[in-house]
Amino acid sequence: MTSVAPRAWERVLARIESDLRDGRISPGQRIPGERALASDLNVGRSSVREAMRVLEALGVLRAQTGSGPDSGAIILTRPTGGMSALMRLQVAGQGFPVADVVRTREVLERSAVSELASREGTDLSEIDELLDAMENRNLSRQEFLALDAQFHLNLAEAAGNRVITAMMSGLRDSVETYTGRIAAALESWEETADRLRAEHRGITEAVRRGEPALAEERVTAHIRGYYAEANPEE
Amino acid sequence: MTSVAPRAWERVLARIESDLRDGRISPGQRIPGERALASDLNVGRSSVREAMRVLEALGVLRAQTGSGPDSGAIILTRPTGGMSALMRLQVAGQGFPVADVVRTREVLERSAVSELASREGTDLSEIDELLDAMENRNLSRQEFLALDAQFHLNLAEAAGNRVITAMMSGLRDSVETYTGRIAAALESWEETADRLRAEHRGITEAVRRGEPALAEERVTAHIRGYYAEANPEE
Repeated sequence: MTSVAPRAWERVLARIESDLRDGRISPGQRIPGERALASDLNVGRSSVREAMRVLEALGVLRAQTGSGPDSGAIILTRPTGGMSALMRLQVAGQGFPVADVVRTREVLERSAVSELASREGTDLSEIDELLDAMENRNLSRQEFLALDAQFHLNLAEAAGNRVITAMMSGLRDSVETYTGRIAAALESWEETADRLRAEHRGITEAVRRGEPALAEERVTAHIRGYYAEANPEE
Repeated sequence: MTSVAPRAWERVLARIESDLRDGRISPGQRIPGERALASDLNVGRSSVREAMRVLEALGVLRAQTGSGPDSGAIILTRPTGGMSALMRLQVAGQGFPVADVVRTREVLERSAVSELASREGTDLSEIDELLDAMENRNLSRQEFLALDAQFHLNLAEAAGNRVITAMMSGLRDSVETYTGRIAAALESWEETADRLRAEHRGITEAVRRGEPALAEERVTAHIRGYYAEANPEE
């Protein structure tokens, strides 16, 4: 922020943040209406609306459909949404080099599979369903890669760390973009897809057998190997 | 997003994103003015302003001070800003449990020190200065912890992965909040501070000697040990 005094919309944001932190509003509840906040903080209603958009983009609030401007029509949602917009825009703006995105995936996913493999009785049925769905030979490259991305996200979700899940979910668009670019450039997609299928099974198997080190090693080789198809020098 | 058709401010956001991705605007450049964007996309100027606030909060844009509404007075900035607001609000809204924040720190910092220790000739002089500054016995707990947080962030910056640095920087406020709460509850702060000083030196030493595994082990023990002072059962 360049200015010293907080601008009107920033004051609204700070107010919502302190209300959240102090428990005056909680997840699932509505937030005071636009008119009430504006008069309470002595700012214009357009400033309140600007702050609401920011909170929505950050995944903190969800606008209630069909609600009037004074109904306090905003509820708090699950925390994974906002980071996606952030990461997408940062990558688009060249803030984040793809190699750094790939390396960050590695770090986060290694931690997820290691955590999962160290635990007993995790339900892997959704993950198995994704593996089966990816066996379909009629999938386009794009369809395959969407299931692939979902498989990786599901591993993180199953591991249960919400911050890491949000970060992974924030990386998803960037990941689909670079994996799609690599896939489009491959001569023999089916050969690569078969290798990816086998690697996915291998990672899941290591998790199921409770071998954290093996699971980490396999997920690292999987992510690096695919990226190296297009970037052999790195 | 709940609505099917993108709302006006979302269309503005999508337009900026595609302009960035396709290189029509680049970091350091100005963005089309409010009036131009509004007429171009056939939306109200308040919708353009809402989208600009979102981009600003996400750390993609910086508002130019003293500029009129039509001067296109927005420039792109370095990519670390936005995640901080996001993480702070998510933690405030109880989206992210503190234990998950601590564990995520571990994962990201292990990767940073391992990377640093695997590399030769990294300039650690700023890090040494922070270590020396933390030796001052007249620092308040809060002052010490601010330097402490800066030390950890500097390690990530020196390692050079921009995504991980942005994530670490996004966690900073949450980290300072929980470390501050723990420090405030300690009976013998000086004893703990001495241990933290020694641990910081130990991490830096392992990095300097080029021992990735030792650096990882030390940073993990450091983060876990401090958190365990207040949460012995976890």
